[in-house]
Amino acid sequence: MADSSWPGCAKSLKGVILDLCGVLYDSGEGDGVAIPGSIEAVKRLKESDLQLRFCTNETQATREKFVAKLQRLGFDISVCEVFPPAPAAISVLKERGLRPHLLVHDGLLQEFEAVEKTNPNCVIIADAAENFSYQNLNEAFRVLIGLEKPILFSLGQGRYYKETDGLKLDVGVYMKALEYACDLKAEVIGKPSPTFFQSVLSDMGLKPHEALMIGDDLVNDVGGAQCCGMKGVQVRTGKYRPSDERHPTVIADATVDNLAHAVEVILSQRGLEA
Amino acid sequence: MADSSWPGCAKSLKGVILDLCGVLYDSGEGDGVAIPGSIEAVKRLKESDLQLRFCTNETQATREKFVAKLQRLGFDISVCEVFPPAPAAISVLKERGLRPHLLVHDGLLQEFEAVEKTNPNCVIIADAAENFSYQNLNEAFRVLIGLEKPILFSLGQGRYYKETDGLKLDVGVYMKALEYACDLKAEVIGKPSPTFFQSVLSDMGLKPHEALMIGDDLVNDVGGAQCCGMKGVQVRTGKYRPSDERHPTVIADATVDNLAHAVEVILSQRGLEA
Repeated sequence: MADSSWPGCAKSLKGVILDLCGVLYDSGEGDGVAIPGSIEAVKRLKESDLQLRFCTNETQATREKFVAKLQRLGFDISVCEVFPPAPAAISVLKERGLRPHLLVHDGLLQEFEAVEKTNPNCVIIADAAENFSYQNLNEAFRVLIGLEKPILFSLGQGRYYKETDGLKLDVGVYMKALEYACDLKAEVIGKPSPTFFQSVLSDMGLKPHEALMIGDDLVNDVGGAQCCGMKGVQVRTGKYRPSDERHPTVIADATVDNLAHAVEVILSQRGLEA
Repeated sequence: MADSSWPGCAKSLKGVILDLCGVLYDSGEGDGVAIPGSIEAVKRLKESDLQLRFCTNETQATREKFVAKLQRLGFDISVCEVFPPAPAAISVLKERGLRPHLLVHDGLLQEFEAVEKTNPNCVIIADAAENFSYQNLNEAFRVLIGLEKPILFSLGQGRYYKETDGLKLDVGVYMKALEYACDLKAEVIGKPSPTFFQSVLSDMGLKPHEALMIGDDLVNDVGGAQCCGMKGVQVRTGKYRPSDERHPTVIADATVDNLAHAVEVILSQRGLEA
């Protein structure tokens, strides 16, 4: 069933990029829970002629562990299809000869195991959850304030996300905290950084207008994708709030109830309805 | 000995306002330590014909306990001379019929004992130090995001302060964090709020040009006082950093090594040199 608010671009699409948390599943205790209909929706996309990638600001675990969790939840997904910020950050560190002080989730440390970290000349923060203690934030601050030219990388800039037991503060909040403390501007690696979206498009070999991003974060998923020339669709799951539909600057190309609905409309418009 | 960089205004002065932490003492383990020469400097000001008040963003203890600590360090100081943000905040709550959720230092809770706090319709944050855990910040965030018209009060907006074991993040950092999380602007109670400085001037019965502020925080002490029409002098103790003397917008009327030096110059210019 076609939705009248849907932009009639589905026929010219060649690829779809999905956010993970809030679109495929809600994080929380244990592995979290799959959002109803999303396992089947991913399966339908995979069976279609569309390319599919997953673009996430997830940084609480290594890519391998994170993908294993999604597989346990029932999703047909493999490591090479998933683009999180940490591997992108490691490339940047290498290019610029930087040694990071890390303020990240314990689960992400392994990803940085091979990275030189002694005598740090930059700070990397990611969604560290409980590790965002006063002491740890103060330690990151002292590293930055002690550098002649402080460099702060933030893996994403989200305000908050939704877990099964409620909203949780995300890394962007602590990025703003350190920016103010040290009077600097962080470099964001992850969504909505255009270089990050571009790396996913390159992997698919697609131009921006050939791809569609579906996410629950209006600014970072939808707005970020639109800034790159892609279409951006918001789902009413995860961190979605009704006020998103009255946002002063970011207007989604469509807002749909959930991923299952989005996929149904896309495939139906392409004449591939199951 | 007069300093050539000193603005020759000492003779027309009628009152001096001193910041506390970083000017009289450095906080840290136990009571902290008095900055050399400052006990004698306060004594000399008290023996002069100048009025003296203390204007602080200190919020780690009730005013009574805080003043008792300064007395133990050797300072001649009494409760009625000290202006911290918490009593000012309580007045604002009463005026506007607000019930706060508090994210403050344990030592400050007693100050708010008589304040109605059930079913909160605003959040107050102050320098909470170790209480700025992820869980506590998230709790304050959830209160704000759940209000139709979220109101956040920040007792001060400092970036950091100096304790005996190094620099520590101050409340302003967490104010910025919650501002970003909830997309709002906090109301600052304390320095550099003009109403806060004005309350001290009113207590002395002085006009702004008759008073001088001495502090270690260029923006909140010096800049704040200057915005009210007072002179502002920075001391090179506490959180002072050499880069303060190249600040793009705030230029102190004078920068001196410490409080003892400032008092020596003021009294010497007034012909009261000891």
